[in-house]
Amino acid sequence: MLGLALSHPGDELEAELSDSPGVEIVDVTGDGGVLSRDAGQNVVGRAAADVLRRAGTRSGVRLWLHKQMPLASGLGSSGASSAAGAVAVNELLGRPLSEHDVVLSAMEGERAASGTPHADNVAPSVMGGIVLVRSYQPFEVIGLPLPENLHISVVHPHCEVSTAEARRLVKGRTYALDEIVTNLGNVASLVAALGRGDLELLGRSIEDRLVEPLRARLIPGFDAVKKAALDAGGLGCSIAGSGPSVFAFADSVSAATKVGDAMQAAFRSAARLDSDLFAGKVSSSGARVV
Amino acid sequence: MLGLALSHPGDELEAELSDSPGVEIVDVTGDGGVLSRDAGQNVVGRAAADVLRRAGTRSGVRLWLHKQMPLASGLGSSGASSAAGAVAVNELLGRPLSEHDVVLSAMEGERAASGTPHADNVAPSVMGGIVLVRSYQPFEVIGLPLPENLHISVVHPHCEVSTAEARRLVKGRTYALDEIVTNLGNVASLVAALGRGDLELLGRSIEDRLVEPLRARLIPGFDAVKKAALDAGGLGCSIAGSGPSVFAFADSVSAATKVGDAMQAAFRSAARLDSDLFAGKVSSSGARVV
Repeated sequence: MLGLALSHPGDELEAELSDSPGVEIVDVTGDGGVLSRDAGQNVVGRAAADVLRRAGTRSGVRLWLHKQMPLASGLGSSGASSAAGAVAVNELLGRPLSEHDVVLSAMEGERAASGTPHADNVAPSVMGGIVLVRSYQPFEVIGLPLPENLHISVVHPHCEVSTAEARRLVKGRTYALDEIVTNLGNVASLVAALGRGDLELLGRSIEDRLVEPLRARLIPGFDAVKKAALDAGGLGCSIAGSGPSVFAFADSVSAATKVGDAMQAAFRSAARLDSDLFAGKVSSSGARVV
Repeated sequence: MLGLALSHPGDELEAELSDSPGVEIVDVTGDGGVLSRDAGQNVVGRAAADVLRRAGTRSGVRLWLHKQMPLASGLGSSGASSAAGAVAVNELLGRPLSEHDVVLSAMEGERAASGTPHADNVAPSVMGGIVLVRSYQPFEVIGLPLPENLHISVVHPHCEVSTAEARRLVKGRTYALDEIVTNLGNVASLVAALGRGDLELLGRSIEDRLVEPLRARLIPGFDAVKKAALDAGGLGCSIAGSGPSVFAFADSVSAATKVGDAMQAAFRSAARLDSDLFAGKVSSSGARVV
């Protein structure tokens, strides 16, 4: 129910209006050939089509998607493409949709990717910053205060986590009240910390007793990487999405880089895994025209 | 992990220093004779003794407790007495303890009352306002922003809920992930609402899928009372503590009174229960010298 926008990496989408109705995906680059070019099967096509439908236009769009987000990384790659598709088409049409409806259209991309139209990736990808999904029935998302100096390190190790396995682990069981209360207290203090701009408190609040213990075992070297992040001054450390990427907060770009370096070294020494590091500010803006 | 301070009712405690060490409870009034006069068995005595211990003093104290909080109501009656005991003795000694340590001493009263030293009642009773208990190990409480116009109606129906039964209901089972995520989203938005001063959002966030459905069945007429509160303009409605009291938020004293009247009428018509109404501001101050 929480997500945030990274400054980088991000997908790029070229889009133009077309006289023929519907969505045509002209090309996809950067995906190693694994994503569908069929607009009905690709998240960017589904999100774009939903904007056309909501806008009630007879126009169509042609799209060129340049993937830069790593696939199956836990970084919300499909959410980034979905957000790009929805935002781009809304811009081309002169912004007929509200931001709220753009998020709903982007969620149609997520439905295509995972079967459920979840908003935890697309809402921050559209809106920027840190976004809370309070409720789906009715749908309500809330932008949270973003401290000016909030930085993040995300390390993407070169291994694969089965999303199906990661989901089965957390959905196929029930949880005890004391674990739940710990998470409730920490998510409440996380929001309080954002309001105060208290990054030390934010770091202490990154304590997940429900999901992290289950999914950590799917990430080789996770315990060593988390220890390395905290030892290097990281303000909290946990799993990005369903993994295998791992994130830590920091209060400056130099601290974020130092923490990221330590996490990469730990992935190498504990699990012989190479990785990519993305270190920078949490982005206050979401998908945008470039 | 969340609690708040009512403007009224509240217990009154008279306290004076004594040359003989330890705590003497001289008298207790307003309790119908049910509370122990033995300082080792009464929450106010236990909290007072813990302050003496922490302060390392050889002095003792004599206490007169005038109960005004209803017992076994869900309003934190034992927490109010515990807070009074800890704050009063700390004041008499010239405030040797920090607020943090006064809360810890008050928790010793709760340990005597319920077996576990929980802080959700005593922390707001000592500190005032709305308080989050983020963690017990290590112990950390956080005062949340208190909107100026936040009012509350609390209705205490004249019936009894077994605390043991109320606890057994929630502790003797486990919970599904989708219910948990709903509560996580709502507690996060509750804190965000306090930060924004958005009372409508605060009201929408009073949505408890975990505990309320289990404990509601112990309160005769609960569904009718909740509906009456919301129909009368209450900003959210749920159970106070383990019940049987029910609370609703409002944005003015007149709205709080109107909502409270509606809740009392519903207790009468749906369950033939008389009740007491406490309507007023959430108190920004906790236990204090009067």
